[in-house]
Amino acid sequence: MKRILLTIAYDGTNYSGWQKQKDEAVITVEGELTKALRLLFRNPALECVGASRTDAGVHALGQRAVIDVETSIPAEKIPLAIRSFLPADIVVTKAEEVAETFHPRFDCVKKTYEYRFWNAPAKNPKERLYSAYVQKPLDVERMNEGAKAFLGTHDFAAFCAAGAQVSTTVRTIFDCHVEKQGESVRILVTGDGFLYNMVRILAGTLLAVGMGRLEPKAVAAIIAGKDRRAAGQTAEPQGLTLLEIFYDEKDLYEAAKN
Amino acid sequence: MKRILLTIAYDGTNYSGWQKQKDEAVITVEGELTKALRLLFRNPALECVGASRTDAGVHALGQRAVIDVETSIPAEKIPLAIRSFLPADIVVTKAEEVAETFHPRFDCVKKTYEYRFWNAPAKNPKERLYSAYVQKPLDVERMNEGAKAFLGTHDFAAFCAAGAQVSTTVRTIFDCHVEKQGESVRILVTGDGFLYNMVRILAGTLLAVGMGRLEPKAVAAIIAGKDRRAAGQTAEPQGLTLLEIFYDEKDLYEAAKN
Repeated sequence: MKRILLTIAYDGTNYSGWQKQKDEAVITVEGELTKALRLLFRNPALECVGASRTDAGVHALGQRAVIDVETSIPAEKIPLAIRSFLPADIVVTKAEEVAETFHPRFDCVKKTYEYRFWNAPAKNPKERLYSAYVQKPLDVERMNEGAKAFLGTHDFAAFCAAGAQVSTTVRTIFDCHVEKQGESVRILVTGDGFLYNMVRILAGTLLAVGMGRLEPKAVAAIIAGKDRRAAGQTAEPQGLTLLEIFYDEKDLYEAAKN
Repeated sequence: MKRILLTIAYDGTNYSGWQKQKDEAVITVEGELTKALRLLFRNPALECVGASRTDAGVHALGQRAVIDVETSIPAEKIPLAIRSFLPADIVVTKAEEVAETFHPRFDCVKKTYEYRFWNAPAKNPKERLYSAYVQKPLDVERMNEGAKAFLGTHDFAAFCAAGAQVSTTVRTIFDCHVEKQGESVRILVTGDGFLYNMVRILAGTLLAVGMGRLEPKAVAAIIAGKDRRAAGQTAEPQGLTLLEIFYDEKDLYEAAKN
């Protein structure tokens, strides 16, 4: 038996999120991927374990998942071999054999997300599925000033959707900055983990800063206050893309000793 | 009666091109726009005259069309007023009153198109509807060298799809260059007019140059030879976007004298 780590890219537009649902009428990325893997490996019981549960409409370029398979197909041939079993909006971009003790969720050391706004006098129909639209010109310098407050280890209770069950709302943010490229404004954020809707609430808060509705220095106070109602609105799902998940080489390739 | 010039952006993915067809079951951008304009202006006979006929799957950010209407709606309010009558993938981004003698096709002085490739080891599902995918790394410097051959006035018979009926295949190209932005490679081309499929054949030819299958200096010889078979393949429609159409201020705002 081999444990294979897959890297998966998808356009989340047509899916009810990553996670497979009991109701098979609900089309999910994990559900479609699992169907394809079962066909490729001729194993109707095969399951995959994903690294991150993305919401409906959210995209990924670097989602990860593992499968345990008995197969003679070399890992590096899997991306090409699975292509004909997958819809065009889901792509396995990489596959590699990893240690049998590797876990895509527990071994994650950091993740990078991108949140994208289309900031122009008129909507761009080519961006409608991949950006939130903002007509008022955003002040990117102000947004970058506000973004600094997220850096470091904080209790991010104010940036967690209600009803999420987590043991702790403390997370560490390693990088958070805003880039402008033409009419596209991108927030890039890297952390050791993210609470439910955290990146979208962070994006909604920086949006308020960029529009002048919130002072950059108010962001630190919102974090300290731990009150969800003080933070910005949850930004729309289509602007969000899971870019990359990072692991330690040791966890990936060396089996843990008991 | 006022003549109104509309600027239209659309995601061409779900349309059989711009031009309205006799068969109403064929969904086109012009067809959907005309339906929306008829509802907005309560005129079931209203027709619009477009500037450029884009093919199925081709996008536009700066398509133009004119309508003649009796209306009390100020031109600048039309983009917002029409929004609820249009699908999300068609946006009227601007509307302005122009001279009654203005014609969006005959008065065009130049047009800019973009052709986009996604050039990376793996496909990007978010780009699949907006770029042609190329796995092999493209040599953008070579492509720019080849692109120079298109500049100026030439007989572009080698860059015209068979069956096109035109009085002359001579066109003037004012600018043609290639830009790389991350894994996206864009060809930008501006000319006084383009033959049927000309930009897609030009893109397919520069693709062959970028992949090393064609010498940059061969492009001038292909143009001079006027043989369609010597040029590159017609690149896929989804990579193409009509960016902008340019007019003279005089034609736009001063009625021509007979």
